[in-house]
Amino acid sequence: MSDAVLDPASLRKAEDFRWAGVDSRRYKEENAAPFKAVSRQVLFSDPRLAGELRYFEVEPDGYSTLERHEHMHAVMILRGEGQVLVGTIVHAVKPHDLITIPPWTWHQFRPAPGEKLGFLCLVNADRDRPQLPTLEELSALRADLEVAHFLDGVNKDESAGRR
Amino acid sequence: MSDAVLDPASLRKAEDFRWAGVDSRRYKEENAAPFKAVSRQVLFSDPRLAGELRYFEVEPDGYSTLERHEHMHAVMILRGEGQVLVGTIVHAVKPHDLITIPPWTWHQFRPAPGEKLGFLCLVNADRDRPQLPTLEELSALRADLEVAHFLDGVNKDESAGRR
Repeated sequence: MSDAVLDPASLRKAEDFRWAGVDSRRYKEENAAPFKAVSRQVLFSDPRLAGELRYFEVEPDGYSTLERHEHMHAVMILRGEGQVLVGTIVHAVKPHDLITIPPWTWHQFRPAPGEKLGFLCLVNADRDRPQLPTLEELSALRADLEVAHFLDGVNKDESAGRR
Repeated sequence: MSDAVLDPASLRKAEDFRWAGVDSRRYKEENAAPFKAVSRQVLFSDPRLAGELRYFEVEPDGYSTLERHEHMHAVMILRGEGQVLVGTIVHAVKPHDLITIPPWTWHQFRPAPGEKLGFLCLVNADRDRPQLPTLEELSALRADLEVAHFLDGVNKDESAGRR
């Protein structure tokens, strides 16, 4: 038949956003952790692939790290609804929406109330480490009221209602 | 605020497996076309990304090209059920299943009867061109009855019922 060597893991079945043979790592939260209730599964990582595909899931009331870095993120929402901060823009997102995080752009993911927000994230295998905002940078970001509400976990519709 | 340059396409909304601002290219079928009823949308392709993420959709009774190449495919099923040939193995697949196509491995995607089969495919931006099977290679593949049934578009359950 084919003379190619078969990868024994040529199929990995999905079951409710968990994949067979893929370790689900829930990030450990220290007191100073800049994220909350986030798990990560590395779906594809291979020396023959220049990119890596990961699945992140943020539980209700959780949020990913507010960070930036030189490498890009290419994101597809896979589960739930929520909001994504890209630079100073807050986007409402739902399954299959695509989000591009350009280099050196602050970003954070937050589920809508009561939702789990799951998303695929494609990155270069070879990439730099993320930076966290300084107090000055955070303050500058919060100068925008919509961004401040997002960072405080205040739902957009709620905050609109309060104005 | 942030000093990063914002990508104007930081969000591209999804609507029934079509993405805003993404061209959906239905492959043109000539008489000798080795595929049938396949469309492609390139979701992420950027000089700053080492990988490309594409979405392929195969309509009922269609099939992707039977091919192999040096570069790997990292696939996630996104829509519908179907079967995937990887080397000489026929896998039944459903949404969110992961398929690894190792280098130089024959592969083809086929939807289940009446289904559209849609899948994400991650590849290296820098990659070789696919090869089609020679008559000898096709004959060798067809020596396996299950593979022959797959290539003839005979549903696995149907063919099992006939034995």
